[in-house]
Amino acid sequence: MTRTSDVPVDRPLGAAEAPQAQRDPAPTDAHLRETRNSSQELFKGKFLHAFRDQVVLPDGQMASREYVVHPGAVMVIPMDTDADGHVRLVMERQFRYPVGQVMVEFPAGKLDASETVLACAQRELQEETGYRATAWARAGVMHPVIAYSTEFIEVWFARGLIAGERALDAGEFLDVFSASPQELLQWCFDGTVTDAKTLTGALWLQNVLSGAWTLDWQTPP
Amino acid sequence: MTRTSDVPVDRPLGAAEAPQAQRDPAPTDAHLRETRNSSQELFKGKFLHAFRDQVVLPDGQMASREYVVHPGAVMVIPMDTDADGHVRLVMERQFRYPVGQVMVEFPAGKLDASETVLACAQRELQEETGYRATAWARAGVMHPVIAYSTEFIEVWFARGLIAGERALDAGEFLDVFSASPQELLQWCFDGTVTDAKTLTGALWLQNVLSGAWTLDWQTPP
Repeated sequence: MTRTSDVPVDRPLGAAEAPQAQRDPAPTDAHLRETRNSSQELFKGKFLHAFRDQVVLPDGQMASREYVVHPGAVMVIPMDTDADGHVRLVMERQFRYPVGQVMVEFPAGKLDASETVLACAQRELQEETGYRATAWARAGVMHPVIAYSTEFIEVWFARGLIAGERALDAGEFLDVFSASPQELLQWCFDGTVTDAKTLTGALWLQNVLSGAWTLDWQTPP
Repeated sequence: MTRTSDVPVDRPLGAAEAPQAQRDPAPTDAHLRETRNSSQELFKGKFLHAFRDQVVLPDGQMASREYVVHPGAVMVIPMDTDADGHVRLVMERQFRYPVGQVMVEFPAGKLDASETVLACAQRELQEETGYRATAWARAGVMHPVIAYSTEFIEVWFARGLIAGERALDAGEFLDVFSASPQELLQWCFDGTVTDAKTLTGALWLQNVLSGAWTLDWQTPP
């Protein structure tokens, strides 16, 4: 597949087509967009920073939108091959308080101010797992919570892994383990993995390993 | 694949194994879990409801955790076959204020109080797209934002689609269109689709259509 910027436009669904389906072949989005009228800080905590904006809807009516401002984050899919040539992934088990569960995840962390995305990916991988990687490839970006947060998560692959010492943040506790892509996909199916960023990582991994999706690898200095 | 409750445990990564990898073959998670000491409401808006809890970390130290309480949601992957037997998906384009973009998504919505998950799925599909479905299958659950929200999103498939009138909520504006699975996967690759729940839906769809993952279809009354 090649990267394109095709905008999805309406396509007929045949007999079951929705009567309301939008038929403009080149939508301008003016019938969807909301614009800011005013903005009010709701709360600034140690972590959460929330706002309520008054917005103008496409029909001219007013509405309020409450959301969290987030600096953005990076997730790393660290993979390597074992002595038998099988792909192994580096993953984590971490207790996540809001959902009250130990979650199986790919390594990830928030962007620091004035840090590049790649630098963040390298830092988080090393801090959380101890690994450095000799080759990196940017896969894409995801938005985990479009209804009420500005958060984005950059998705990167890392390979050529070199073990080292981890350096967890204060108050951070997590296990590092390795898994095969087959195990990861089984866990996505059976409900062991429910973290949306890691599920998205599994989509990328499956299509990269099959050759359907290609990556542009780089070897940073 | 069959559904199992295997807990991922440490597996060696061969030569590149992390020295910190946790080696207990049956982790109890006591070394990861945080327990609540106290809880304080930070803010109750029209939509956002936020708390700060004081928690006891695995090493006995204290820390604070700020998070949003969310009622949970359902996402529907509505699919059908056209006159030529090709799979068609019903999708939406909706402006999402926190990320400032029109997003390509599967239909989804929040659970109402005392509403079953299936009833919510049926309601949201009909309200947003006009479609009713004759057969439903629960795929699984995802957690979109494990660092700072209790939100979960149930993932359901729907087929046997019957077009009807939509009934959008006040202030809700969205386009309905149809797409092929191949288009959806291309959009996940090229960055047209960045919504994490829809990316997770694409993972499910790809594996269901390939036959790797099976669904248990039901025909509600």
